[in-house]
Amino acid sequence: MAEFSIDRFVDLYAARTSGMSASEVRALFAVASRPEVVSLAGGMPFVQALPADELLQVVREVLEEHGSMALQYGGGQGALSLRTRLLELMAAEGVRADPDDMVITTGAQQALDLVGKIFIDPGDLIAVEAPAYVGALTAFGAYQPRYLQIDIDGDGMVVDQLEQAFIRGERPKFVYTCPNFGNPSGVTLSYARRQQLIALCREASIPIVEDNPYGMLRFEGDSLPCLRTLDPENVIYLGTVSKVFSPGVRVGWALAVQSVIQRLTLAKEAADLCGSSFMMLVTERYFSDQERWRTNLSTLVGVYRSRRDAMLDAVAEHFPEGTEWTTPAGGFYVWVTLPAWMDTRAMLAAAVERRVAYVPGSAFYPDGRGRDQMRLAFCYPPEDRIREGIQRLGALLEDETQLYRSLRP
Amino acid sequence: MAEFSIDRFVDLYAARTSGMSASEVRALFAVASRPEVVSLAGGMPFVQALPADELLQVVREVLEEHGSMALQYGGGQGALSLRTRLLELMAAEGVRADPDDMVITTGAQQALDLVGKIFIDPGDLIAVEAPAYVGALTAFGAYQPRYLQIDIDGDGMVVDQLEQAFIRGERPKFVYTCPNFGNPSGVTLSYARRQQLIALCREASIPIVEDNPYGMLRFEGDSLPCLRTLDPENVIYLGTVSKVFSPGVRVGWALAVQSVIQRLTLAKEAADLCGSSFMMLVTERYFSDQERWRTNLSTLVGVYRSRRDAMLDAVAEHFPEGTEWTTPAGGFYVWVTLPAWMDTRAMLAAAVERRVAYVPGSAFYPDGRGRDQMRLAFCYPPEDRIREGIQRLGALLEDETQLYRSLRP
Repeated sequence: MAEFSIDRFVDLYAARTSGMSASEVRALFAVASRPEVVSLAGGMPFVQALPADELLQVVREVLEEHGSMALQYGGGQGALSLRTRLLELMAAEGVRADPDDMVITTGAQQALDLVGKIFIDPGDLIAVEAPAYVGALTAFGAYQPRYLQIDIDGDGMVVDQLEQAFIRGERPKFVYTCPNFGNPSGVTLSYARRQQLIALCREASIPIVEDNPYGMLRFEGDSLPCLRTLDPENVIYLGTVSKVFSPGVRVGWALAVQSVIQRLTLAKEAADLCGSSFMMLVTERYFSDQERWRTNLSTLVGVYRSRRDAMLDAVAEHFPEGTEWTTPAGGFYVWVTLPAWMDTRAMLAAAVERRVAYVPGSAFYPDGRGRDQMRLAFCYPPEDRIREGIQRLGALLEDETQLYRSLRP
Repeated sequence: MAEFSIDRFVDLYAARTSGMSASEVRALFAVASRPEVVSLAGGMPFVQALPADELLQVVREVLEEHGSMALQYGGGQGALSLRTRLLELMAAEGVRADPDDMVITTGAQQALDLVGKIFIDPGDLIAVEAPAYVGALTAFGAYQPRYLQIDIDGDGMVVDQLEQAFIRGERPKFVYTCPNFGNPSGVTLSYARRQQLIALCREASIPIVEDNPYGMLRFEGDSLPCLRTLDPENVIYLGTVSKVFSPGVRVGWALAVQSVIQRLTLAKEAADLCGSSFMMLVTERYFSDQERWRTNLSTLVGVYRSRRDAMLDAVAEHFPEGTEWTTPAGGFYVWVTLPAWMDTRAMLAAAVERRVAYVPGSAFYPDGRGRDQMRLAFCYPPEDRIREGIQRLGALLEDETQLYRSLRP
């Protein structure tokens, strides 16, 4: 799928499709899915940790008790029982809300799409942290926004930059951020920055889109309050069970004030009528047993923590001088910044050749910056494979460095 | 949800949301879901006919044999095994295609949304049969098209009208039709009209979007070839398992030339990354046993045929003179045209009061025509309930007629 096929409809497509590209990176990832390649690219959760017999039991209960409902269409807002259950989970994180304030979506990805759909007219400005989750950029991109990129440092989004933009008169439709163990940065927004962001956006009446897929995957330290908790009215919170249960059920949600949820629900109905009742009821039932899901989650957190440690150790050992990287306190990703002359996009083919894959940094910036950066995911391969992959990547970086030096007298 | 809540973001929403309305009809349907109301409104399949033990067995096999895959993310195009299986089903209908020509979607509804997304710029013209499936109008409507409405008669879409429009110089982005037992018309596009439509659109290089959810629910007579079979290059075929298996799994698909499928896949990934691997594998496994699914399907067809008969008999008995209705040879719907002075939208509240619900005709026309029409669904209530509902509706129509006559000297 590296290039589009010859096309009889070429004059008929909408303008928004010009931003949808079948890139060469995509073609490389197809190659990278071969078993001999250590993939540090995809953010696939380690679903093998989920006991299959528990899941079968959950499905049996759903079919026996709610078979007709599971197999039928449901309302666009999603099963009430699931919304109630998810609020129970969020209450444990300090979030208070009513089931009416929630719409269930096909993963948090669909919530991103629907947020784009109800807020963005072509040419509208939106503010996004940079680097930002590539899937958010893709979802929003379909609605043809302009972007205000706000840098990330070790404390998360640099809110001062956003404030400067407001002072200049910029009025984005919303501000997008992934504040906990961000994708791809691995960085967490500090408490002081959270307060600053909340106050700034509230004052400006600009909603914040808080994307929080990784919040419950904390390896160490104390949780910080969600942005939604700090300002229930001005924050559109997006959640998902993909990382704490399974992405295969495709259950995510948006939590916001009624007026937003009503529009998201109408947009959801236009997009696919409703989610899978079957998968919603299975998800509800899975989370009905506190001990079950907390035990499984704590197993997962242990696995991911060990893998992060393995990756950080290997990066410290094998990456050349002048490399910088983040130290995530949770989540899936380490974000690497190489010497400025390096080009991770150009280098990807050589990496795959050496049987290791990553995501080039430029994918995470609307303006294509970040050619000297890369995202490394530690969530899926076991520790020895991670070490092997980082070693291969380190050797490549070393060779590239030698070559670069030999060409500069 | 009859009115939007007071809204702090009222100045921030995209222009496309102005067409998304929380209508009074919606509020009435909430009332109509009470058990004492006979709902002839919703097109809910009779999923109770599906043996729960068979389904549990299917799920068990999927979890035992492909557990990790079922719980994981998959590719945006959908599981290859499912695409291959669905092509087997379609081959039985005379459709030949390659799994690469298919993308799996969240029901056919998402395929409609994605077709809108890749083809429609604001203000673009699209041609739709009139009346047309309300969900198609909602999906396309989010992309702000203009509409060319093509009437339906007893042989389906009046293709001559489309030809006249082309002669006038109209150039729609695509032509949308539901050719088999159409929603809401119940009418089937004749063979001669199929050939005429295919030739006309091929000549004009305008793609046809063929929406075929009901094709396998034929009560009598012989099948006609799909438009896709008559012109594999120029037709975008949309299918779903919602009516032949279960809408709760949310599995539909689009079948088209590579260039279109590539763009639909990219749009799908932007919209929700991928469908539920779990539900895709369950669907694949369900249809792997020919005898199982054909037996269940034939049970369903028998049920729907009896319900159609019950509805047509009751309509003939209870509806006042001057009423016309269609006689569907399959599917879910009877389309009723009342005397021209009647207003089915205004009358709905009184109908719900009398414990019967339908969908007002105007919902199915972009320009809001059809106030003297209504859609009656015979798919869900048992025969005695259908007779009861039609009797109540007939009494209301009779009373309205008396009142109307008494006011006109």
